[in-house]
Amino acid sequence: MKKMNIAQIQMPVADSKDATIEYIKSAIASAAEKADFAALPEMFCCPYHVDNFPKYAEEDRGRMWQACSALAKEYGIYLSAGTMPERGEDGKIYNTAYVFDREGRQIAKHRKMHLFDIDVKGEMQFKESDTLTAGNEVTVFDTEFGKFGICICYDFRFPELARLMALKGAQVIFVSAAFNMTTGPAHWELMFRSQAVNNQVYAIGTAPSRDENASYKSWGHSIITDPWGTVVSQMDEKEGICINEIDLDHVGSIREQLPLLKQRRTDIYKLVEL
Amino acid sequence: MKKMNIAQIQMPVADSKDATIEYIKSAIASAAEKADFAALPEMFCCPYHVDNFPKYAEEDRGRMWQACSALAKEYGIYLSAGTMPERGEDGKIYNTAYVFDREGRQIAKHRKMHLFDIDVKGEMQFKESDTLTAGNEVTVFDTEFGKFGICICYDFRFPELARLMALKGAQVIFVSAAFNMTTGPAHWELMFRSQAVNNQVYAIGTAPSRDENASYKSWGHSIITDPWGTVVSQMDEKEGICINEIDLDHVGSIREQLPLLKQRRTDIYKLVEL
Repeated sequence: MKKMNIAQIQMPVADSKDATIEYIKSAIASAAEKADFAALPEMFCCPYHVDNFPKYAEEDRGRMWQACSALAKEYGIYLSAGTMPERGEDGKIYNTAYVFDREGRQIAKHRKMHLFDIDVKGEMQFKESDTLTAGNEVTVFDTEFGKFGICICYDFRFPELARLMALKGAQVIFVSAAFNMTTGPAHWELMFRSQAVNNQVYAIGTAPSRDENASYKSWGHSIITDPWGTVVSQMDEKEGICINEIDLDHVGSIREQLPLLKQRRTDIYKLVEL
Repeated sequence: MKKMNIAQIQMPVADSKDATIEYIKSAIASAAEKADFAALPEMFCCPYHVDNFPKYAEEDRGRMWQACSALAKEYGIYLSAGTMPERGEDGKIYNTAYVFDREGRQIAKHRKMHLFDIDVKGEMQFKESDTLTAGNEVTVFDTEFGKFGICICYDFRFPELARLMALKGAQVIFVSAAFNMTTGPAHWELMFRSQAVNNQVYAIGTAPSRDENASYKSWGHSIITDPWGTVVSQMDEKEGICINEIDLDHVGSIREQLPLLKQRRTDIYKLVEL
């Protein structure tokens, strides 16, 4: 099987975990009617603010993890369960993405490895490292459709990480993300299109819908770009579920026609995972 | 001095070297009235076809090299002398870029290190490696304005090379290039914007104007993108000289606000030049 339907759930972020679980249950039930794979946004269960990350954090396999695992199993769907704040065994807080298979088994766990610390004068300041700790792993995982990669928002800015995932065999890269009203219009589509074409993968970016009253306003615009850099689908800023088919044979076809991965000069430069 | 005026000479490619030298003399004279730096396109002196590269090739410091050096000196301007086919000491043919300072001294030489071999079904086939040999060096050079990098067309597709130039200190990357009617609309602007923002440099792409009768039709669209990924200037497909000012202080300012180069996880991955 080389065709796969992806449902992107561009959702508002609630203060209450009860409300979040109710919301994703209904959304995943609806997505599963057509989709093989559902994707949630970054911090879908924690209003995006440094003070909230410790407050909303749960231990690995905590309540939100269990809810996501159970929903993947109940609806027989792959689930990229966005990200949630995780309290590690070391007591530190991580921004963590989980992926579950159709049986509800965890098949990937990625902790955000590039923390979002920026200071755009007069426009946007944010410092995740005030309360978060960075992860240290490049993450790919296997599915019935092939090998995929996963990373989180600011991670995808770094060509090194996307390249390492592609070199490890990723044909699709899932990115739970939340760009803002400064970086969104400037770089969101550009980043997804360029990483997709440079690494000849599908890039799937899923963001929260915009809440005009939030302190951090999400750009939304959940997006799918194909390995030629074409935008397959892009939402606006509003809440919704968007389902699209992607064709994994297209990855091989593009890689044959424009053999960028093969034509790297690995005799001149080398990118290594330490 | 942190501001610099750049003249991009988007020119037609003539069959005759006499005509080419006459053309660039007039263009550089005109550019030098305002500009500090002039840039010529890829293969500005050789109609772009694999059969022509050996026919038009000259040894290092041959007639075309001398004409360019002399013009840089005569008009007191930095000159990125596009590219020309070079017959190496080894008898092999290279696609070579030279840069001259205001005294006409060669300050950089770059041989295209990623050869353009593509086969987009039904649209675009080209195989530079039929007659060209690839170079093996990452190239940066010093000017009175700071350190710059240089590469050629397909080279700029590879995030590794752009990153290495930025890590070696390049604040501006010059790219003599000739995208075509397939890759141009799909990837030209995307490549310049994304490499500029990922590496927080100005990216300067200079292409030949379009000749509708040529076997390889140039996309044109000579472009300047700033370190935030904004398009500062983009021409259409027609012949012309476009002069723009860039502000090198903007590089430092963007690197401070969005510290992508510093935030690379060099404890997790490493890109090295071998």
